[in-house]
Amino acid sequence: MGGDKAPGEIVAGARQAADELDVPVLLVGDPSVFEPGRLEVVAASEVIGMDEDPAVGVRRKKDSSLLRAAEAVRDGRASAMVSAGNTGATMGSALLRMGRLSGVSRPAIATPIPVPGSTPTVLLDAGANADCQPAWLVQFAQMGSVFATERYGIAEPRVGLLSIGEEPTKGNALVKETHALLAAGVPGVRFVGNVEGRDVMTDAADVVVCDGFTGNVTLKALEGSLTFMRDAVFGAMTSTDEAVKASEVLIPLLLPLATELDPDTYGGALLLGVDGVCIISHGSSSAKAIVNAVGVARDMVEQDLVGALREAVRR
Amino acid sequence: MGGDKAPGEIVAGARQAADELDVPVLLVGDPSVFEPGRLEVVAASEVIGMDEDPAVGVRRKKDSSLLRAAEAVRDGRASAMVSAGNTGATMGSALLRMGRLSGVSRPAIATPIPVPGSTPTVLLDAGANADCQPAWLVQFAQMGSVFATERYGIAEPRVGLLSIGEEPTKGNALVKETHALLAAGVPGVRFVGNVEGRDVMTDAADVVVCDGFTGNVTLKALEGSLTFMRDAVFGAMTSTDEAVKASEVLIPLLLPLATELDPDTYGGALLLGVDGVCIISHGSSSAKAIVNAVGVARDMVEQDLVGALREAVRR
Repeated sequence: MGGDKAPGEIVAGARQAADELDVPVLLVGDPSVFEPGRLEVVAASEVIGMDEDPAVGVRRKKDSSLLRAAEAVRDGRASAMVSAGNTGATMGSALLRMGRLSGVSRPAIATPIPVPGSTPTVLLDAGANADCQPAWLVQFAQMGSVFATERYGIAEPRVGLLSIGEEPTKGNALVKETHALLAAGVPGVRFVGNVEGRDVMTDAADVVVCDGFTGNVTLKALEGSLTFMRDAVFGAMTSTDEAVKASEVLIPLLLPLATELDPDTYGGALLLGVDGVCIISHGSSSAKAIVNAVGVARDMVEQDLVGALREAVRR
Repeated sequence: MGGDKAPGEIVAGARQAADELDVPVLLVGDPSVFEPGRLEVVAASEVIGMDEDPAVGVRRKKDSSLLRAAEAVRDGRASAMVSAGNTGATMGSALLRMGRLSGVSRPAIATPIPVPGSTPTVLLDAGANADCQPAWLVQFAQMGSVFATERYGIAEPRVGLLSIGEEPTKGNALVKETHALLAAGVPGVRFVGNVEGRDVMTDAADVVVCDGFTGNVTLKALEGSLTFMRDAVFGAMTSTDEAVKASEVLIPLLLPLATELDPDTYGGALLLGVDGVCIISHGSSSAKAIVNAVGVARDMVEQDLVGALREAVRR
């Protein structure tokens, strides 16, 4: 029921995922407003809206599709949940119903940032925790490393700490304290030092750790500038008849880049640190995004991401 | 002496500015390593390097070009200083030699972010203060408003607070407290509420206020993604003979955009809150960037930006 294109694209994607990936998909929501096809439906009469206050939503709407989906995972009826809906409410539902993994201080949102020609950079926290403590960021480094290994096959992911200069003395108080902890050595974390905003879209690190405020601002700034550039370039390409003709040659050359930068390609962000696989897809998710998200969910369940995270934070 | 292209491009730009803008330019540095032409030189035997620790540099190198330049402003020998060198050392020199404006808690770096088709968004603090207090951000809002008025002629600049959602409840502790202060009403500030990372490159606000850590990360993330996109698009345009031919039509259509996005166009960032005009140009500044920076410096002196700032923080 969640996402700017719900339920149409979401249900279409779920059906396509069931067909193409051979993954049994449960739809959670009000079946009177969509066509489930041969998919099983878990009824939920309420919806927490995209702009609704997440805390109020999860407290009041006990029969919301989000809480019911998280319950399905808790009860073993589903192996993972995927949502393109209200991010805060998705997080809240997962936390309330699945619970935190033992030993995890705070779950974090891990978002893959495209790096064309390379594996994505895993940025976390991308918005779950606006105010953070150094020890939480250290745990994000551990969880992000596990995720980069399970999701992208990177044996020893390089972890960078997002700051405003490479030197350990650069940054705010949170970052300087976190740097000291990471530099002292943390099990499962290959720390490569501070990275800067301009490094996020490069191959400088496999995992970039920051507080959820900085991560969310950075993510949205990148989205904004990429959208802006895409529109500007395509605007120029369609501004004259001659440009349209010239673009016939160039568009096929730019398409691979456009695909690599399209958030629908990535299968969404993961909420790391809850006791289950929870995928937070972009609000603008198309059917294709949902297919990719279901594929990632399947992989993460089969590879036992949650078990690996549980081990990592114990060390 | 400062900047990746110093002294060549810097001196060339200074000479060009003197010729084209009819502004008398003082060069500060070691005249044995550059050709001043008919420009006057203030001798300085030391240089604080681009990667040198700013605090150590300004403490030890009393005869550095940066400290000497700031002294020239303090002593009334110059009306403004322009530097493409070490940002922290530029800031430190200005603070030490010019001093803070009475009533200013902390000076802030105001950086214009391009918004093609509109005036730039003034982002501050872009890196002077990694850890901030709410009252400082309120003062950044006052100073940023004055700057947007003086520099871009905006009568009542709209001020947005950088956060992770539009609602006043969104953000970290610093932002939530600052929101309450700004929403209660601040003299000289037209507060339009929270803005997000994706709004910085749009016309959503004329001034965007944040702490210097978030501002610097955001600025560098934007620079990184724009550089990446520019390289990717030009890479596609030169990847085949056919593409090169097709690009002959498109490049002239993209040039205005490239110019608008080029940091050299903007004349650099301003350090607001010190008792003098201090322009911090991009480290990669070309001669053109220096010409533009000198032009901005002249305008800000003629319009008495410093006097207007002094008034604004008194209210």
